[in-house]
Amino acid sequence: MEESKGVVKHVLLAKFKGEISSDEIEKLIKGYANLVNLIEPMKAFEWGTDVSIENMHQGFTHIFESTFESTEGVAEYISHPAHVDFGGLFLPALEKVVVFDYKPTVFRL
Amino acid sequence: MEESKGVVKHVLLAKFKGEISSDEIEKLIKGYANLVNLIEPMKAFEWGTDVSIENMHQGFTHIFESTFESTEGVAEYISHPAHVDFGGLFLPALEKVVVFDYKPTVFRL
Repeated sequence: MEESKGVVKHVLLAKFKGEISSDEIEKLIKGYANLVNLIEPMKAFEWGTDVSIENMHQGFTHIFESTFESTEGVAEYISHPAHVDFGGLFLPALEKVVVFDYKPTVFRL
Repeated sequence: MEESKGVVKHVLLAKFKGEISSDEIEKLIKGYANLVNLIEPMKAFEWGTDVSIENMHQGFTHIFESTFESTEGVAEYISHPAHVDFGGLFLPALEKVVVFDYKPTVFRL
């Protein structure tokens, strides 16, 4: 079965700088998750750490995935003051980052 | 609301080599999607191309996200002959790749 969901997923892969403590990382993750309460077009948020066994993670340690209803919703999120403030704390803590937005085409059994 | 889903998500970010045609890319995407029919522990598959506006995609053009019920399911997938055969076609077509597996912690309104 193939379906196209009308959502946009916003994926961020991160490697934190070595000097960022696990307490600071935890606070940043909570701050990221809290954006879902502050920014209306952000509909869901999930995160996790790498458990892959293929050794192709390229040093990335954390992933964050937010869901929006449209590309306009992502644009509203990006310019939202709560996101701008959070980005000012979060991005300087990262050694590497990739941000990738997509409209999923979904296959399910 | 915070919940922990018992699944593992397997995320692959790709940049295809410049010499790979759009027809070849389309065939590779179909081959990737077809693994969901061939490999029992692979429960869902979605893919998309980058629509981000923040210019932090680092050259990646495609994302593929597969869902498994457990890390054991991912290991079974990785060693499955259908995946090994497909990887032999897919990986040489890529200029850049990141593979990241995670157990999502989910926040939803």
